[in-house]
Amino acid sequence: MYELHFGVPMAGAILCTLNIRHDASMLSILLKHSGAKVIFVDYQFLELAQEVLILISQTCTPPQLVLISELLQSSAPILSAQSEFPNYETLLREANPNFTVIWPIDECLPISINYTSGTTSRPKGVVYTHRGAFLNALVSVLMVEMGLMPVFLWTVPMFHCNGWCFTWGVAAQGGANVCIRNVTPEVIFESIAMHKVTHMGGAPTVLNMLIHTPREHRRTFQHKAHIIVGAAPPPTKVLFAIEEMGFSLTHSYGLTETYGPATVCAWKPDWDALPLEQRARLKSRQGLHHLGLAEVDVKDPVTMKSVPADGKSLGEVMFRGNTIMSGYYKNGKATQEALAGGWFRSGDLGVRHPDGYIELKDRSKDIIISGGENISTIEVESVLYAHNCVFEAAVVGRPDEHWGETPCAFVKLKEGFDATKEEIIAYCREKLPHYMVPKTVVFGDLLKTSTGKIQKFVLKERAKAMGSLTLQKKSKL
Amino acid sequence: MYELHFGVPMAGAILCTLNIRHDASMLSILLKHSGAKVIFVDYQFLELAQEVLILISQTCTPPQLVLISELLQSSAPILSAQSEFPNYETLLREANPNFTVIWPIDECLPISINYTSGTTSRPKGVVYTHRGAFLNALVSVLMVEMGLMPVFLWTVPMFHCNGWCFTWGVAAQGGANVCIRNVTPEVIFESIAMHKVTHMGGAPTVLNMLIHTPREHRRTFQHKAHIIVGAAPPPTKVLFAIEEMGFSLTHSYGLTETYGPATVCAWKPDWDALPLEQRARLKSRQGLHHLGLAEVDVKDPVTMKSVPADGKSLGEVMFRGNTIMSGYYKNGKATQEALAGGWFRSGDLGVRHPDGYIELKDRSKDIIISGGENISTIEVESVLYAHNCVFEAAVVGRPDEHWGETPCAFVKLKEGFDATKEEIIAYCREKLPHYMVPKTVVFGDLLKTSTGKIQKFVLKERAKAMGSLTLQKKSKL
Repeated sequence: MYELHFGVPMAGAILCTLNIRHDASMLSILLKHSGAKVIFVDYQFLELAQEVLILISQTCTPPQLVLISELLQSSAPILSAQSEFPNYETLLREANPNFTVIWPIDECLPISINYTSGTTSRPKGVVYTHRGAFLNALVSVLMVEMGLMPVFLWTVPMFHCNGWCFTWGVAAQGGANVCIRNVTPEVIFESIAMHKVTHMGGAPTVLNMLIHTPREHRRTFQHKAHIIVGAAPPPTKVLFAIEEMGFSLTHSYGLTETYGPATVCAWKPDWDALPLEQRARLKSRQGLHHLGLAEVDVKDPVTMKSVPADGKSLGEVMFRGNTIMSGYYKNGKATQEALAGGWFRSGDLGVRHPDGYIELKDRSKDIIISGGENISTIEVESVLYAHNCVFEAAVVGRPDEHWGETPCAFVKLKEGFDATKEEIIAYCREKLPHYMVPKTVVFGDLLKTSTGKIQKFVLKERAKAMGSLTLQKKSKL
Repeated sequence: MYELHFGVPMAGAILCTLNIRHDASMLSILLKHSGAKVIFVDYQFLELAQEVLILISQTCTPPQLVLISELLQSSAPILSAQSEFPNYETLLREANPNFTVIWPIDECLPISINYTSGTTSRPKGVVYTHRGAFLNALVSVLMVEMGLMPVFLWTVPMFHCNGWCFTWGVAAQGGANVCIRNVTPEVIFESIAMHKVTHMGGAPTVLNMLIHTPREHRRTFQHKAHIIVGAAPPPTKVLFAIEEMGFSLTHSYGLTETYGPATVCAWKPDWDALPLEQRARLKSRQGLHHLGLAEVDVKDPVTMKSVPADGKSLGEVMFRGNTIMSGYYKNGKATQEALAGGWFRSGDLGVRHPDGYIELKDRSKDIIISGGENISTIEVESVLYAHNCVFEAAVVGRPDEHWGETPCAFVKLKEGFDATKEEIIAYCREKLPHYMVPKTVVFGDLLKTSTGKIQKFVLKERAKAMGSLTLQKKSKL
């Protein structure tokens, strides 16, 4: 995957990495939409990929599958599959060593397409340009003070905004990449200690994993390891625990449409002396735009006026600059909407503090972020609505100690019909990837506005009031 | 000067900083050539500037002089001048606080013009674009591992390639600038210790000054201060002495035409364990191009073929990429020559080592670098040739413990004419800025090639054989 981040653009092609958690149906839709000619598949996902190819071949010619297999002798099924598909390593060995790199004739041509968590009917392929990727790679490196020859541990999936552009950024700095198959605390600690990891991404899930690792499974390390945390700021307790373990945290925020990191909570040395609670509050802010962007602003989405920098007035967070997507692939309407008025409208609601730092307050799109992945509540709701017994459904995020948040479904059953929570969850498991399935189901009436819209805000409060899902509770489910 | 690096472009104007060591004649030529409308003058240079304005007014309308004076009450002459010219600080105080920044409508529009040490008849104004300056600022910061909130000590003059673009780079990193009026070892040591300087430029002159400072005039400091050394690599002894004092050295190379730094001797951690001599030899190489450039190559200037990477085959060092000048202002011919074949031809001769690092071997343009400033030998020679008694003259660099090198003139007098060394030097002082005046004059025949060209290579060897000019010897002059 890391090699393909360079090989694909250098071959004059466009990179389109897919979320390995998607099911065959979604993957076939995305592959068809992207018009991919070749798909590179790790042996772990070969079965899924074959399913996808069958689905595609019902309506059109499927892409050529190239198998990536590092373990040639390990298992019989893989060996048999090998005869069917060309092998990546073999292709490399047999390739022309004098191949000339095909440079883009225009820096604004696409280097990659990154699919957001779109609904089934409208996957949105965010188009990155060579120019934007170059810039975001460099400024992200600057943003996290990544020195020369860093060692980057890949806890952030590379399919996610091209690893926040750190795929290219690490190479720019002459760094080493530590890639792991399973993101477990043991593997993380071992990698940090063994390879002297300098930088890694840290979704709240990863941070939680680390601090909840029993001491006997941890490894100590003498150097400072740097964690870049995404939009959801860690709670005070987590921040404290993680810093105590020898990590330093940078809080960044961005969207697929901003090539990953777009703002950073630039840390002022004076703040080090503040009490922990106050430091956590400062750290929880999303901060200032990085050097690749022209501007980040919090605006009234209708008048396009900036909100006052009072830390209270809500507005939509908007961006403009070089590291904003060119648009959504084959979706002019969504592109126009997202970029209306010359700004990229994030859909996230926030405030501007008197010192200029922005802070997110809510997501107008009601997206749930679970384990670093976006879950569209609309998509989950559409599955629930398809259940025979369901009259109405609304999905919101419920705090979760491990995943940050998980989907919580409020369901009103049809009169005269009955279904258990377990049945609802089992039904969703059939239709949705595992991570999108509600972990909590609550039956009852749904509060509505006078115009008949479900009051999600109230449901969110109720989900919060239930408290965090803990590992104990979940294991009982 | 630092403020003007931002204020001038933000006002939609073009910055053109001038070498304070030029004389009034050269300054008037450059000002006329640039078409400057306003000139900002520090009070220390007011007298010189007034002379310049008189010279210009003989042929055209001189620019508006704005006086920069921080010492309002200090001296009477300055006060009287104040009534004549508007004062910078007063203008700032009275300016419109709601002034809207005038952004360039095209990133390839010029942000600044930087004059090289051209001859009197052909000053060359190197045009920098907003795009190039942005990129070179960021990649220079990356190149020297300048972290967030650096403290930069200005030993590199800001008129020199806009301070190698560190004017903008330091701002990008939220840094502090330490500006000093007099570059003396005492001031440098005091600034480093007091302000915790993290980065500074270091022409060989500055390095020499530091290591020759008596211990009682030095200040110790606990942090690591980072020195960026220009094209001329420090000799082993200097390297050793400077590292022992708590500095770390980055060896970079570039020209005005490359926005300052263009290559860097990227240091591999393994090399730290090598013996000093070997480390010095590795450090003396100019290295690899930085991230803002597409390519640096060592080529045959006629066939444009790359020389083999054998560390021996000489070729001309050439560059291409985003951080190459747009051209020379109002000089299409020189622009075409310099950029012929799609590469910027540096005029410097070098080799490529098997590991890809380049190393300069000679300067085909015979430029002398004295105290970090370029001296065109042709310019000095043209003055010598104008002397009544001089038949032939050739100027080369002679090693100098303080300045790196100083001009050494080989002169053949006309038959029947006589002149002393002192008279030749005094004559040059009248016509040239002080730093360009030969410090050494040697009378005798000049060796020539069969085609009648003076063999400068032989003269250089002779100048070298005389040994370094030392401070003692110079004070005797």
